[in-house]
Amino acid sequence: MKILSSVPKNDGFFMPAEFEKHYGCIIIWPERADSWQYGAVMARKAFTEVAKAIAQSEKVTVLASDAAYDTAREMLPDYIRVVEMTSNDSWARDYAPTFLKNKKGIIRGVDWGFNAWGGLVDGLYFPWDKDNRIARKICDLYETDIYNVRDFILEGGSFHVDGQGTVITTEACLLSRGRNPEMTKNEIEEKLKNYIGAEKVIWLKRGIYNDETNEHIDNICAFAAPGEVVLAWCDDKNDPQYEMSKECLDILEKETDAKGRKFKIYKIPQPQPVFMTDYECEGLINFNGEPTRTGGERLAASYVNFYISNGAVIIPGFNDENDVKAKNIFQNIFKDREVIQIYARDILIGGGNIHCITQQIPISKQ
Amino acid sequence: MKILSSVPKNDGFFMPAEFEKHYGCIIIWPERADSWQYGAVMARKAFTEVAKAIAQSEKVTVLASDAAYDTAREMLPDYIRVVEMTSNDSWARDYAPTFLKNKKGIIRGVDWGFNAWGGLVDGLYFPWDKDNRIARKICDLYETDIYNVRDFILEGGSFHVDGQGTVITTEACLLSRGRNPEMTKNEIEEKLKNYIGAEKVIWLKRGIYNDETNEHIDNICAFAAPGEVVLAWCDDKNDPQYEMSKECLDILEKETDAKGRKFKIYKIPQPQPVFMTDYECEGLINFNGEPTRTGGERLAASYVNFYISNGAVIIPGFNDENDVKAKNIFQNIFKDREVIQIYARDILIGGGNIHCITQQIPISKQ
Repeated sequence: MKILSSVPKNDGFFMPAEFEKHYGCIIIWPERADSWQYGAVMARKAFTEVAKAIAQSEKVTVLASDAAYDTAREMLPDYIRVVEMTSNDSWARDYAPTFLKNKKGIIRGVDWGFNAWGGLVDGLYFPWDKDNRIARKICDLYETDIYNVRDFILEGGSFHVDGQGTVITTEACLLSRGRNPEMTKNEIEEKLKNYIGAEKVIWLKRGIYNDETNEHIDNICAFAAPGEVVLAWCDDKNDPQYEMSKECLDILEKETDAKGRKFKIYKIPQPQPVFMTDYECEGLINFNGEPTRTGGERLAASYVNFYISNGAVIIPGFNDENDVKAKNIFQNIFKDREVIQIYARDILIGGGNIHCITQQIPISKQ
Repeated sequence: MKILSSVPKNDGFFMPAEFEKHYGCIIIWPERADSWQYGAVMARKAFTEVAKAIAQSEKVTVLASDAAYDTAREMLPDYIRVVEMTSNDSWARDYAPTFLKNKKGIIRGVDWGFNAWGGLVDGLYFPWDKDNRIARKICDLYETDIYNVRDFILEGGSFHVDGQGTVITTEACLLSRGRNPEMTKNEIEEKLKNYIGAEKVIWLKRGIYNDETNEHIDNICAFAAPGEVVLAWCDDKNDPQYEMSKECLDILEKETDAKGRKFKIYKIPQPQPVFMTDYECEGLINFNGEPTRTGGERLAASYVNFYISNGAVIIPGFNDENDVKAKNIFQNIFKDREVIQIYARDILIGGGNIHCITQQIPISKQ
C-alpha cells in the first residue's frame, strides 16, 4: 500500500456513485459499551441482518476487534468474512476509506482526517485514534493505495456523489466549528472536488433534526440515479423537521447537477418521531460518567439512511406506519433491485443507520 | 470460511512441498516482551529482512496486533501487506494453518490444536489462546475453508513433507508427554497421514540439542526436492549434537520415501555453539517472575531452519565461520534459486529461526 500525497482529481481518480457496481462492502462489528445497549446483542443481530442482505449480491467483510471477534464469527454466516481490526466504534461509512477509481478500473482509497464528529468542540467521544487508523488498515487489507488528506476533517457520511461530477452535502456539518474552522466554504468545496474528483458541490443547509453528526447528508438526501434524489420529507408543520426538509427541497428544486440536469426529487415520508427509552439508556455503560443518551431523547430516524448493494436496496424499518409506504416508494424508484427492509431501531439508537454502518468498494474492472 | 469436519485425505486434499509454487507467505510481527529482547527492535529488523527477501518473489502478509501495528507498518516496505491480527507470539510456522490443496488447485487450511509446545507439561508460555485462534482467522482472511482437528496437538514446524506422500518428523516432539499422550505412535501417524494427505511417515529420533520445541524436525532436517533432504550435521564427537545428527543420518540412509526412493542426503555443517548473553537476558521482561532464558544458555542454532520462496532460499547466518560454507552448499542444491543469507541471531534468541516465523500458502491454480 502506497500512501499518496498527490491529488486524486489530477491523477484521474473519482468516486463512483453507490448505485454503480460494487466489489463488496465493509461493516464494522458493534462493541462500544456507551454506544450499544446491553452488550450490543440486539445491535449485533441487526448488523448481521444488514450484512446478510448485502451478501446476497456482493462480498461482505466484517471487521471486529480481537475481543469481539468470536461473537462476530459466531453470529455471522460463514459466507461473510470476518477480519480482525480495532476501532473506537462501528461507523464504516464515516472512517473506512472513501474508495475512488479511475478509467482503467484501478481502485484507491482516501484517508480523510476523522475527529469523532467534531473533536473537542462537539465530538461524540474521545479518543478517536483507532478510528483514524482504520482507513489505512483497510486499504492495506485490500491492497489498494491511499491518498493522505488527514489534515482535512471529513466523514464519508457527510457527502453523497452521483459519480458524474456532482456532490451534495450540508452546511450544518461541513461548516461546523468542530471540523475545519480555519477553512472557508470555498476552500472546503475545493478539497471535496479535488479528493472526490468532482465538478460541482450542492450545499443543502441542514439535515435531520437532532442528528448528532451535525446533520450528515446521508440521513436526509441521497442519489438514486444521475439526476434523481430521494429526500426525507415531513408533512407535519409543527415538527422541526418540516422546515429543515422544506429548505432542502427549495434548494434542490432550483439547482442543477454537474451535467446541467434538473433534479427529479422523490419525497420519502419520515417515520413518526422515535425516542430513546429509559430502559435502553440503562443498557449503556457510560465512560467518565458522561451519558451518551437520555431517556426521551429524540433519535434521528430516517428511511433515507439506506444502502444500495449490487442486487438490493437495504432500507431501515422502525415498526412505523410509514415503513410500508417508504418501502413502496423505494421499490418504485429502484425497479431493478429488491428492496429489503430491516428493523433498525437497534442501529439507530447507536447514533446512525444502515448507510452509516456500511462502506462500498467499487469493482476494479468494469 | 467453512469449518470442515471431514478428513482431508478422503476429500483429495494434501500438503504440497515447500519447494513447490507459492501464492505467498505469512509472517507474524514479534512483540512479546519475554520472547524478544529490548522491545523486539532487533528482532523486528531481522523479521523485516526476511519479509523483504521473500517478497522479492511472492506476496508477503505480516500480521501484527493493534498495539504493534504501527511499528510493523513503519518498518516494513509498502509492498508488504500488514494486517491486524492478535496472537500470543510470532511463530507462523507453528500455528498459522497448514495449507493443503487438491488436484483442482483449491486451497484449504488445517486447524491443528496448539498448546505452546507442551501445554502445562513442558510448554513455553501460558496462555496460548490467541495463537490457537490464528489459523481460523487466517483462513477467513484468505477466504479458504478449514479442517478442524483441534483435538490433535501439532505444530507446523514439527513435520516436513515432500508433496509426494512422504512426511518426516521426530519422535522427541510428536511422542512428547505434553502433546497427545493418550495416543499411540500408530494413531499419531494415521492422523498425520489423514490430515496432510500422505502415505508414509519417517520417524527420526531427535532434533537439535536444547531445542525447546521438543526438537522440531524443521531445525534439523528438511526436503530440498523429492528424494533429497538436508540434514544439520556436527563433526565434533564431544558435542551432544553429534550423536543426535548421526542417529538421524543412520535412519535416513536406511529409509525410502513413499515412492520407494532412497534419499540423497546433504549434510549442512552446524555453526559453532551459540549462547545467550546476560545482556540479552536483561532485555527480556519476564512474566510472573519466570525467566524464559538464562545467560550462557545454548541456543538451538541451525542453518536447516530456512525458507524456500518462489525465487530464493532464505537461510540464517550467525556471523560464524560456517556461514559461507552452508550458503555454498545450499546454492549447490538449489541451483535455480538465489540463496539469501540473513543474520538471524535476533530471531534465534526468540526461540526459533527463519522457517519457524514463516508459513507458505500454495498457489491456487497451477
